[in-house]
Amino acid sequence: MIIAVIGGGHCSTEIYELAREVGEEIAKAGAILICGGLFGVMEAACRGAKEAGGTTIGILPGKIKNEANAFVDIPIVTGFNEARNVIIVRSADAVIAIDGEYGTLAEIALALKFGKPVVGLKVAFAIPRVAQVTTAGEAIKLLLNRIGAI
Amino acid sequence: MIIAVIGGGHCSTEIYELAREVGEEIAKAGAILICGGLFGVMEAACRGAKEAGGTTIGILPGKIKNEANAFVDIPIVTGFNEARNVIIVRSADAVIAIDGEYGTLAEIALALKFGKPVVGLKVAFAIPRVAQVTTAGEAIKLLLNRIGAI
Amino acid sequence: MIIAVIGGGHCSTEIYELAREVGEEIAKAGAILICGGLFGVMEAACRGAKEAGGTTIGILPGKIKNEANAFVDIPIVTGFNEARNVIIVRSADAVIAIDGEYGTLAEIALALKFGKPVVGLKVAFAIPRVAQVTTAGEAIKLLLNRIGAI
Amino acid sequence: MIIAVIGGGHCSTEIYELAREVGEEIAKAGAILICGGLFGVMEAACRGAKEAGGTTIGILPGKIKNEANAFVDIPIVTGFNEARNVIIVRSADAVIAIDGEYGTLAEIALALKFGKPVVGLKVAFAIPRVAQVTTAGEAIKLLLNRIGAI
Repeated sequence: MIIAVIGGGHCSTEIYELAREVGEEIAKAGAILICGGLFGVMEAACRGAKEAGGTTIGILPGKIKNEANAFVDIPIVTGFNEARNVIIVRSADAVIAIDGEYGTLAEIALALKFGKPVVGLKVAFAIPRVAQVTTAGEAIKLLLNRIGAI
Repeated sequence: MIIAVIGGGHCSTEIYELAREVGEEIAKAGAILICGGLFGVMEAACRGAKEAGGTTIGILPGKIKNEANAFVDIPIVTGFNEARNVIIVRSADAVIAIDGEYGTLAEIALALKFGKPVVGLKVAFAIPRVAQVTTAGEAIKLLLNRIGAI
Repeated sequence: MIIAVIGGGHCSTEIYELAREVGEEIAKAGAILICGGLFGVMEAACRGAKEAGGTTIGILPGKIKNEANAFVDIPIVTGFNEARNVIIVRSADAVIAIDGEYGTLAEIALALKFGKPVVGLKVAFAIPRVAQVTTAGEAIKLLLNRIGAI
Repeated sequence: MIIAVIGGGHCSTEIYELAREVGEEIAKAGAILICGGLFGVMEAACRGAKEAGGTTIGILPGKIKNEANAFVDIPIVTGFNEARNVIIVRSADAVIAIDGEYGTLAEIALALKFGKPVVGLKVAFAIPRVAQVTTAGEAIKLLLNRIGAI
């Protein structure tokens, strides 16, 4: 099972901690974490997953693997810039969106188009079919339930 | 000047006529129309543009140019499926969204991320910074104004 | 009919003149020229096509249309870096390769994989099924013949 | 360290066994194997890597993870068709090409353009800077040497 974490490349300390907890929960659930491999929410989630013994994949926008954050196990180097978001969403069984702006909204919409379950944490946009929760634990529990894994 | 029309591959007769008018207005404004090259809103807009003597570009998702609708002058064959939407939005100076579902929402969000002006006609989602209008004429007028072309 | 010109982003004066003649021949044949939209062979071919009254499409690797050379009519902005070469080859009915290095070899190979006719002018690599000719006129004549246009 | 194996989606029994040995050698060297995730040479290499306890990544061309062969640990679903080859090559530290036709030639050329070491086993094309060897062991040894890992 692969779970995507999407969110901004810059974030507040509060959001960073939330994303870190999400990463931990993903690892504890035995799932692989996939994300954009950069900073902010992506780094925090990868860090949390590594701290809990999980595996992390970073789908990088640029041309070199060195742009990945320090907690990415498997850097996938695309050179596709924003179009790499399609790969993150397609490769995931479910998506957790945290905070974020228009880029995150684009990924949420794409996930819904592809029929993937999406849960939102502190997402600014109200979108039909995106369940908004407030804790990392709730987010994972809800997603696993929707995937049919629990 | 290149203006993108985005919207669903299937649409009602009412929306089809609206998209056709949008295509006409784009052509009358002297702009090139870019879209996904398929059916529904895309076909209607291309048809309207051709009827008004304009030029149309279709950024196709599949592997062959024959999937383009009959009103595409220049079929660009990507083979990138949904990721081709990034190309439509990047290549446009401004975007008109008509009707549509989650795929359209993803494109709108991407356009906003890239800082492109977006106008919505009968778009189901309420999105900050997307001006919603009701006629093709208003849509074009507003966009040209925001691009600084009038 | 759309004909691709592929070749290096830097080239000698001799190759520049050859590519310019190729662009002229494409325009005279009534075909649209598609290329990577940048410099060297791409610029020369676009220049030749414009001088003969043709139409040029540039499939750009980066994120902004301003990177196109001055002779591109329709800049298509991908942000996909080298992967944009797939779009050039897929969108073309036939391919003319001029000079070039490994990037050009990759595009030639892709064109052959897709079953497109390929003609080479001063190409360094000997590749099965690529006819090597020495003048722009021969290149176009051979391609039109293979497409079945003459 | 990530090593790419590229080659045809269909192959002879002899080539299948060779690719399987290459997969084994990659796993024994402690490297992760990346490939296109489908059949023929790709499946054989993944199988060999799994038999030797390694990890395999499949960069899939289509829209669903189920198209991956049975020996892919981490299916990355792109929907980008042939353009996914760019991701394979960009993500790898080195490339082993086995047999193959024009698609493989395109990937080899791309790898050389990106400055990645490439070794060929039974490759039909003679390409400058591609060392041709005859056994899986030689291929790995040569690559590790060129990467500077031994």
